[in-house]
Amino acid sequence: MTAAASTLDYRALARARLPHFLFEYIDGGSYAEVTLQRNVTDLAEVALRQRVMTDVSAIDLSTELFGQRLAMPVALAPVGLAGMNARRGEVQAARAAQAAGVPFCLSTVSVCPLAEVAAAAAPFWFQLYMIRDRAFMIDLIDQARAAGCSALVFTVDMPVPGSRYRDLRSGLAGAAGIAGSLRRAWQAARRPGWAWDVGLQGRPHHLGNVAPVLGSNSGLEDFLGWMRNNFDPTVTWRDLEFVRSRWDGPLIVKGILDPDDARLAADHGADGIIVSNHGGRQLDGVLSSAKALPPIADAVGGRVTVLADSGVRSGLDVVRMLALGADGVLLGRAWAYALAAAGEQGVRHMLGLIEVEMRVAMALTGCTNIPAITRDILA
Amino acid sequence: MTAAASTLDYRALARARLPHFLFEYIDGGSYAEVTLQRNVTDLAEVALRQRVMTDVSAIDLSTELFGQRLAMPVALAPVGLAGMNARRGEVQAARAAQAAGVPFCLSTVSVCPLAEVAAAAAPFWFQLYMIRDRAFMIDLIDQARAAGCSALVFTVDMPVPGSRYRDLRSGLAGAAGIAGSLRRAWQAARRPGWAWDVGLQGRPHHLGNVAPVLGSNSGLEDFLGWMRNNFDPTVTWRDLEFVRSRWDGPLIVKGILDPDDARLAADHGADGIIVSNHGGRQLDGVLSSAKALPPIADAVGGRVTVLADSGVRSGLDVVRMLALGADGVLLGRAWAYALAAAGEQGVRHMLGLIEVEMRVAMALTGCTNIPAITRDILA
Amino acid sequence: MTAAASTLDYRALARARLPHFLFEYIDGGSYAEVTLQRNVTDLAEVALRQRVMTDVSAIDLSTELFGQRLAMPVALAPVGLAGMNARRGEVQAARAAQAAGVPFCLSTVSVCPLAEVAAAAAPFWFQLYMIRDRAFMIDLIDQARAAGCSALVFTVDMPVPGSRYRDLRSGLAGAAGIAGSLRRAWQAARRPGWAWDVGLQGRPHHLGNVAPVLGSNSGLEDFLGWMRNNFDPTVTWRDLEFVRSRWDGPLIVKGILDPDDARLAADHGADGIIVSNHGGRQLDGVLSSAKALPPIADAVGGRVTVLADSGVRSGLDVVRMLALGADGVLLGRAWAYALAAAGEQGVRHMLGLIEVEMRVAMALTGCTNIPAITRDILA
Amino acid sequence: MTAAASTLDYRALARARLPHFLFEYIDGGSYAEVTLQRNVTDLAEVALRQRVMTDVSAIDLSTELFGQRLAMPVALAPVGLAGMNARRGEVQAARAAQAAGVPFCLSTVSVCPLAEVAAAAAPFWFQLYMIRDRAFMIDLIDQARAAGCSALVFTVDMPVPGSRYRDLRSGLAGAAGIAGSLRRAWQAARRPGWAWDVGLQGRPHHLGNVAPVLGSNSGLEDFLGWMRNNFDPTVTWRDLEFVRSRWDGPLIVKGILDPDDARLAADHGADGIIVSNHGGRQLDGVLSSAKALPPIADAVGGRVTVLADSGVRSGLDVVRMLALGADGVLLGRAWAYALAAAGEQGVRHMLGLIEVEMRVAMALTGCTNIPAITRDILA
Ligand SMILES: Cc1cc2nc3c(=O)[nH]c(=O)nc-3n(C[C@H](O)[C@H](O)[C@H](O)COP(=O)(O)O)c2cc1C
Ligand SMILES: Cc1cc2nc3c(=O)[nH]c(=O)nc-3n(C[C@H](O)[C@H](O)[C@H](O)COP(=O)(O)O)c2cc1C
Ligand SMILES: Cc1cc2nc3c(=O)[nH]c(=O)nc-3n(C[C@H](O)[C@H](O)[C@H](O)COP(=O)(O)O)c2cc1C
Ligand SMILES: Cc1cc2nc3c(=O)[nH]c(=O)nc-3n(C[C@H](O)[C@H](O)[C@H](O)COP(=O)(O)O)c2cc1C
Repeated sequence: MTAAASTLDYRALARARLPHFLFEYIDGGSYAEVTLQRNVTDLAEVALRQRVMTDVSAIDLSTELFGQRLAMPVALAPVGLAGMNARRGEVQAARAAQAAGVPFCLSTVSVCPLAEVAAAAAPFWFQLYMIRDRAFMIDLIDQARAAGCSALVFTVDMPVPGSRYRDLRSGLAGAAGIAGSLRRAWQAARRPGWAWDVGLQGRPHHLGNVAPVLGSNSGLEDFLGWMRNNFDPTVTWRDLEFVRSRWDGPLIVKGILDPDDARLAADHGADGIIVSNHGGRQLDGVLSSAKALPPIADAVGGRVTVLADSGVRSGLDVVRMLALGADGVLLGRAWAYALAAAGEQGVRHMLGLIEVEMRVAMALTGCTNIPAITRDILA
Repeated sequence: MTAAASTLDYRALARARLPHFLFEYIDGGSYAEVTLQRNVTDLAEVALRQRVMTDVSAIDLSTELFGQRLAMPVALAPVGLAGMNARRGEVQAARAAQAAGVPFCLSTVSVCPLAEVAAAAAPFWFQLYMIRDRAFMIDLIDQARAAGCSALVFTVDMPVPGSRYRDLRSGLAGAAGIAGSLRRAWQAARRPGWAWDVGLQGRPHHLGNVAPVLGSNSGLEDFLGWMRNNFDPTVTWRDLEFVRSRWDGPLIVKGILDPDDARLAADHGADGIIVSNHGGRQLDGVLSSAKALPPIADAVGGRVTVLADSGVRSGLDVVRMLALGADGVLLGRAWAYALAAAGEQGVRHMLGLIEVEMRVAMALTGCTNIPAITRDILA
Repeated sequence: MTAAASTLDYRALARARLPHFLFEYIDGGSYAEVTLQRNVTDLAEVALRQRVMTDVSAIDLSTELFGQRLAMPVALAPVGLAGMNARRGEVQAARAAQAAGVPFCLSTVSVCPLAEVAAAAAPFWFQLYMIRDRAFMIDLIDQARAAGCSALVFTVDMPVPGSRYRDLRSGLAGAAGIAGSLRRAWQAARRPGWAWDVGLQGRPHHLGNVAPVLGSNSGLEDFLGWMRNNFDPTVTWRDLEFVRSRWDGPLIVKGILDPDDARLAADHGADGIIVSNHGGRQLDGVLSSAKALPPIADAVGGRVTVLADSGVRSGLDVVRMLALGADGVLLGRAWAYALAAAGEQGVRHMLGLIEVEMRVAMALTGCTNIPAITRDILA
Repeated sequence: MTAAASTLDYRALARARLPHFLFEYIDGGSYAEVTLQRNVTDLAEVALRQRVMTDVSAIDLSTELFGQRLAMPVALAPVGLAGMNARRGEVQAARAAQAAGVPFCLSTVSVCPLAEVAAAAAPFWFQLYMIRDRAFMIDLIDQARAAGCSALVFTVDMPVPGSRYRDLRSGLAGAAGIAGSLRRAWQAARRPGWAWDVGLQGRPHHLGNVAPVLGSNSGLEDFLGWMRNNFDPTVTWRDLEFVRSRWDGPLIVKGILDPDDARLAADHGADGIIVSNHGGRQLDGVLSSAKALPPIADAVGGRVTVLADSGVRSGLDVVRMLALGADGVLLGRAWAYALAAAGEQGVRHMLGLIEVEMRVAMALTGCTNIPAITRDILA
């Protein structure tokens, strides 16, 4: 393949460039990967209603989310360890998002720390996990404020981490100590392009935001262990109020699949929610976002901003999610693949594809602006 | 394979004879090709009701469409660039259609110009795209009249071209300049039969109808570019009236998938419509024609002639479309494959297969003429 | 494979032993083979209701059909050209059926003529096609009477033969004259076991019942041509009365898929009907027998004997058909495969498998005799 | 693969270690294996309802079944011949179950006899088939009592054994005498690890509990024959009363798929039932347990303890079965694979995986204890 025509092409390119365990980490889902597949197939089954002969010469994709004007209702979802996909990967992705006029969301477990990204790109969103050590959480929120983050995304669907069989098989997880390191080193050696560009020159490879509390044990091999030990399963809606009290800006709760939880999020001060099953990486067997979204939009649409992710692979999928009730859509793997394949340029190009595809979908459903995309365009 | 027993056999033969990028161009659909597949699977699921012991010795396939007597209710759909499939391909196909007693429809973006086809075959249909340059459009309509075209097919589902990933992958699109030319030349070199017969002896390879306005830039590589720049996304139903005012003969609107649009087409002077999703090549995710057709036939059947295409691969499929409400059925890829595989003879033979298959389907559903094919024969 | 555990195993063995064109002839269906597959998948989806702790030590499979006591409600369906599968194949199959206590039905287009089978085995059924030459038909009926046939099966779903793409591809059909002969000879040469045993020693290979009227042109290559020319598409229910008037014994109409046709068959003197789509070999796209059967059984059950075939591959499938409303079930490909694989012994063994499987299905649905198998055992 | 991440990984490891015929014996189902597949796909389709922000730091998996406190509501299903999977396999599995705090159920047709298992592990369940020789049955019940078994599992879905095509193909069944022995020996020779560890050192390989009545004919090759001859198809609910009268402890009827049978089991003195289709190994075509369970739980839940098995491959599946109405869940192939792959350690590890997966599923559906798992957590 010389050039990527779609996010699936970027997936193929990423597979060719990344060491096996990293590709599997991005690509995989939890358990039998039922939800991972449902995300994609349920979206594909959402049928659009074609309309013709409406003047679609001027299509406006711009939208406003949380007081921010965006070139299109799309954002880059938080992806942990993205800095392993390309040299200082989060910085590259943030720059690409800035160029495209859409928000980038930095993960708690990024390679590049908040300050590094802030130094290189426009204001971005920061994703926060509930961590046992509340002092550390407060510190992270303060850092996010200092970095000028424009929204805080509070992820609630990981009180405990789901099991991803592929990570165990690839050697990312489970194979502790030297054995695991050797295995990953071997896989990296078979990808010399990556090994030189990212493996060597992209260092350090620790969790940038977590390194301060982890000390020297902040290498990749400590990532999953740290998550297992420090993610807080006692979290309740009270804790959202705690976060709310510490953060003035837009607060978005990520990982909602149930209308009741959507209402509770609104009740406890969220400005937005993200209908998401974590890209099929947490509880396998839950509904796809495409199926979960409509009743949630009915329940809280208007009260809070409703975003959605999981399974979105094209601009058509973005339009489908908007038609199902979302105000905006996040891309996860789509940008992780593009970043791995071609760095900042890859992410920019991929966002360009998404935009063109949205334009075609809007033109042929007779929508000239984002608010026109409603359930009425579903067949 | 020595002989083709079905359109799928012709597909295999076409794949073996055409340079890769040309086969992919014919075969592919847009985006994830969901609609491309739905077209075929939804038709296959239409179950027929077998009836026995009715005298079916005399089966009459003839029908009248737009005042024209046809040997069977079938026409060859407009297929752009068909002249690349065989030497002066559109002429060969038009002759085959004439021999079979069915209409051939020439695309705006054909290789052979209107006059060349008119010189070689009986009156045919001409397909028109909405083009920014209205003077050029008027000129095309005038040429069609001069060529004696028996109907004008106005395609409305391409205000913007959908993205076909395969064209980008194969090098037909995207790979501009010398790189792209070399790549295509290489693919052509691996198909010496085609290279000699069509590549060399079938020249010139420009867009025959468009060449006058394109000047020297009318080669294959300019095709997609020209479409992107000259197709008119401002088009509305008013523009149909503009076309109507310039054309006395039968006017058929191609690319209708919605009952409301069908009604609008009728309101604005169309004599017929074609229920079509452009063979799954425009907005991926829209309904298959088999699903879209019945409510449209209910809405405007009787008022205008209702044709249908997309996914038809056999005479059984033709009968299915008729049973779902169509007055006539267009074949797209079916004839493009046959033309690529075996030229005029291939198209004639393929139309013969369609006829025999229709006869069997009619005999075993107890229909001895076309009007007898109604929803009543669906199980 | 050393021994066959199921009809699918016999299929594999048949494929290994038969020349390609013969295997394809047995195995294939018409057109896209949609109905061929539906037959099998629709049956597989018929869910059985397991019952336990009912005394199932004494299970009686015997049944009475048309005044004949059968070991089980199963018969061997008419299969044209079965004599090509094994040396004097129809004789071998008839003997196997006799040994198993079930009827064998000889096809009009068998290799062995009526008299040859009659000389070797107990009374069997004879299948008759509607043939243009009425005198010849009368003669066939007379021969059947002379041979002591116990029932006449009148096949009505072949007023015109459906197109089987595989036959065209394999060279059985379409490749006329020497080219076709050579091609088939080559395929036969690659199966020396068959070539010696059946190809050489199983001669003559003409259509035994038709040979008298065909003269010297009664070879395999003339088979399809003869059918195309001599099958009578003018046939109506009046013609059934004609057959009825010539035949005193049980008269069974084969190829009914519609309740209205079932009623008409009863009205015109049929004693039984066979719900059948000819094993997916005639009109592709019609309902599977499993789907067509229940409303037909509701319409005429009790008035006429209702048999069914198409898709039956195991004793479980037999029980499913009985539960859906059939009084008896015919096996088509099941015995053709077994005959090809292992001759008379193969068919006997296959019928033994069917019997054991029926016993298990009956034991676990709590049925100790055939009348107990009703829709009540469906889950 | 270095370590197993899931039961499917254990399946792969088992396939690599076991002689072909043994793997096929465990892995296969009866007939076309429709139910075998339904078991897995129907469970996968059971969608869970994710809930967030409920304190899930303390999750209690413990439960009480038949007066016994269990670490989790899981048990090891009776698996015949498990002693062929690993050296003295049933002993190893019983120890693993004990370590994990869940019941092990010994099959009537185990390799290790009751006494051998009793000597090595804590009280376990014993599974009993209805055997023609009532004196022998009474003797087995007495032995179970003497071994201190904590429950008697009475299997009712095998009045006759279903046919497993794979066993016939692999040579386990059907190939009698020396031919069969040689074939199995050859397959064993290709698995030297197994041949040495289990084949040689794991002897004797007879049916431990049945050996006394079989005399010298108690080898593997006699297994299926013995079952065919000694299983009792006359069994009725009266016989359950007979068993009931001989056994004071908990009595569980295994193999119920119908609400009426569930009621009858309760009426005749059962303390519990197991909704099961024998892992798709008996009547192919019956409902999956996932589909059969809810109406049965509605019918007798509360009156008797409702257990379920068939198709359970993960802790998520366990939670699904509980949500569908089960009080406890049995694992069949899951432990047989793990035992074959890695002996006692394998089974312990597999049970550990199940536990962790249950915890994740409960955490993300907001359940902190087993009673909280109701249909309310289904989406
Ligand atoms: C490799 C990877 C890492 C992720 N890491 C995080 C994370 O650190 N925090 C978070 O809230 N979500 C994380 N997610 C979930 C994404 O934010 C998003 O919900 C998901 O990727 C959307 O599904 P999609 O990949 O199908 O678009 C991650 C997803 C992937 C694929
Ligand atoms: C290679 C190709 C080129 C086409 N070019 C045109 C065109 O120039 N104008 C047009 O109106 N439709 C065009 N179509 C759409 C066809 O007219 C028709 O709607 C479609 O092929 C029907 O679907 P089918 O191919 O499944 O039969 C094209 C289709 C194909 C496959
Ligand atoms: C190779 C073959 C030849 C057949 N020939 C005849 C025939 O001569 N006359 C007839 O009435 N049916 C014929 N049939 C149809 C069978 O009688 C029967 O309806 C069909 O095979 C049932 O489907 P099954 O093969 O799935 O069991 C034929 C079927 C096959 C497979
Ligand atoms: C290899 C094997 C042997 C079995 N043997 C017995 C048995 O001896 N007695 C019994 O009641 N069930 C037996 N079963 C059925 C199991 O107890 C259980 O119902 C079934 O395995 C559950 O399905 P699963 O394997 O999908 O979990 C056996 C199952 C397998 C796979």
